[in-house]
Amino acid sequence: MILAAASDHGTQVLLSLFIMLAAAKLFAELFERLRQPAVVGEILAGIVIGPSVLGWVSPSAITSVLAEIGVIFLLFTVGLETKPAAIFRVGKSALVVAVLGVVVPLLAGWALMRAWGGLQVEALFVGTALVATSVGITARVLSACGVLGAPSSRIILGAAVIDDILGLLVLAVVASMAAGQINYLEIATTSALALAFTAFLAFVGAPVLTRLRPRLERLRVGHAFFVTSLILCLGLSLAATYIGVAAIIGAFLAGMALAEATESNHTLHDQTSGITELFVPFFLTSIGMQLKLDIFSDPKTLTLAILVTITALLTKIVGCGAGALHLGWRQAAQVGVGMMPRGEVGIVVAQIGLSLGVIGDSLFGVVLFMAVVTTLIAPPLLKILFASQTPGSNGSELSRIA
Amino acid sequence: MILAAASDHGTQVLLSLFIMLAAAKLFAELFERLRQPAVVGEILAGIVIGPSVLGWVSPSAITSVLAEIGVIFLLFTVGLETKPAAIFRVGKSALVVAVLGVVVPLLAGWALMRAWGGLQVEALFVGTALVATSVGITARVLSACGVLGAPSSRIILGAAVIDDILGLLVLAVVASMAAGQINYLEIATTSALALAFTAFLAFVGAPVLTRLRPRLERLRVGHAFFVTSLILCLGLSLAATYIGVAAIIGAFLAGMALAEATESNHTLHDQTSGITELFVPFFLTSIGMQLKLDIFSDPKTLTLAILVTITALLTKIVGCGAGALHLGWRQAAQVGVGMMPRGEVGIVVAQIGLSLGVIGDSLFGVVLFMAVVTTLIAPPLLKILFASQTPGSNGSELSRIA
Repeated sequence: MILAAASDHGTQVLLSLFIMLAAAKLFAELFERLRQPAVVGEILAGIVIGPSVLGWVSPSAITSVLAEIGVIFLLFTVGLETKPAAIFRVGKSALVVAVLGVVVPLLAGWALMRAWGGLQVEALFVGTALVATSVGITARVLSACGVLGAPSSRIILGAAVIDDILGLLVLAVVASMAAGQINYLEIATTSALALAFTAFLAFVGAPVLTRLRPRLERLRVGHAFFVTSLILCLGLSLAATYIGVAAIIGAFLAGMALAEATESNHTLHDQTSGITELFVPFFLTSIGMQLKLDIFSDPKTLTLAILVTITALLTKIVGCGAGALHLGWRQAAQVGVGMMPRGEVGIVVAQIGLSLGVIGDSLFGVVLFMAVVTTLIAPPLLKILFASQTPGSNGSELSRIA
Repeated sequence: MILAAASDHGTQVLLSLFIMLAAAKLFAELFERLRQPAVVGEILAGIVIGPSVLGWVSPSAITSVLAEIGVIFLLFTVGLETKPAAIFRVGKSALVVAVLGVVVPLLAGWALMRAWGGLQVEALFVGTALVATSVGITARVLSACGVLGAPSSRIILGAAVIDDILGLLVLAVVASMAAGQINYLEIATTSALALAFTAFLAFVGAPVLTRLRPRLERLRVGHAFFVTSLILCLGLSLAATYIGVAAIIGAFLAGMALAEATESNHTLHDQTSGITELFVPFFLTSIGMQLKLDIFSDPKTLTLAILVTITALLTKIVGCGAGALHLGWRQAAQVGVGMMPRGEVGIVVAQIGLSLGVIGDSLFGVVLFMAVVTTLIAPPLLKILFASQTPGSNGSELSRIA
């Protein structure tokens, strides 16, 4: 048909969206019935429909924008349920967790690659990829389990913000080493800006927004407060990328700054969940779609991928767990496992390494494998660790919605 | 910063989204205060930030996908508030309105262009562009005024569905004439499929979904019924494009089929409104961003643009109004004005003409001008026509949210 032919591109995009959403939710339902986390099902759906298996959908500029919208609003939603005071209370623990969770994986990843015979710069890049935490995955699981308010959840969220800032600095140093020279002034400026941005939003943003709420609600435009929140979320995500941290950190801080002002606003929470229910599946399937299985026909590459993945899992458990050990073994384990997923952040680091010509296709495949597998392993472990903590009403709730 | 540089494309997209949303809502607020429809403000925001004025954002593959998501969910929302029975009751009127609203603009547009000295094929294309109704704009205004249930609103919605099917057939005939030969079989197949699709969803889809609702709600996946609705909305939009009608017709029918099953489901309505509040501004600003003002430096082109626009306005008033005249003058005027906006549908027809090499850049600009101006003029007129009909509680409600 003429009209259909003319809008072929639009139809193609619509088809991709439909396949991603339907496959994600089909797998989510299946995993729920097997009492496994829905997140894992949705990432596996991405692997199945992606280029590695069925080849129905490939990652593109458009799927990555939709995935970005998904993870931005996911972190915004998590921020909405996180009051700044709750994070301050665990600030010191979160800092220690974040620092150890950066240093241990970085050194271990570097050492592994050097022992494997990799170049200095390759080893540094793999170490850096092990640093990044994909808090979106953990946040989704914690939120589905209804334990976002638990002390270990708050430590994970606080540590993830600090981790992102530190990870960014490590990446800046490593990438400028790869490029030839380190610009210390630029790195110092960025870290100062990132800290100031976070502190300003947490200390000043929240009280100001809480006081502004009645005024915003008096605006004439429909759904005024919700619309203002959306603008704030996108604006702060954008500001975060200009400063140099990830957009999701801005979205999380926007949500946190709005947490008190929106506490009893069920309509706003429902409206935000409408966006996340539609877009988070694009984020999760996109992670799975990135996986490239064909390079693993070489057994040496597969061995390295497994070694790197084991290092990635153990170093966060050991590093972050050690930082939270004063809370007892179970909570330390919750924190360590919660910081495990590398997800899209690890993938971004690998892409930067590839674009700088520092790592090759096979090492890129290794890092992708590590990013996807750590992301698949953490959710079931988290579910078990949190389920055993709350065997009461939360336990049964868990099997239904987690 | 290295990381920022690496994700420059992502930052650019985020910047565009932020500008589109913030500008749209700023203008919407301004227009509300001037007691003008917010829709008009949001389209004007698109003209201002677009290439014609400030050049901050340009239409791209990504903005057009977001706009498409916006208009799909807008029509889905409208469908949710439209029970099939309500449309059947006005079916005959809607059919007459749609047919007259296709024939009168087509003939008048063709005659105007022939009188102006245009080629036969050019004249047919301009006539076809005058046929298309952009029901999204009208639906947004009617919904904001809270009059979606009025008889004239139902006639407009019913006529818009029929209009889209007829418009498609006209476009198919004209485009195949431009290409050299008319494939009658293909055209007959498409029209039969489009009719069957609509009838099936309205008669069979709605009762089936209403009966399935308790089962869907028992699924394990979070927000099961909402998620199923999203999948249905995207799936039927896609099915509509395969059949050859616009995706929004599929979305509208999906919403209509769900209308009874979701009647008292406030959470689902809030969740859907979360998506539309975020994405409809991308649809509205995208229409404004398409406008090209530079070709109007030629006074002859400007004259033609004004003549075509006047023809576009008058022919829908006369054609559609005549079809609804048995309801009285006011309701006839409401229907006529409600069918005026050509919006994105007129723009798509113009793009097809351009891609077939049938119309040139200047005539393309003329059609764009007509599409945008008809879209800007209808909402304030509609607001007046519906406000005078309901001077009571609806009247005061109107000045707040319309």
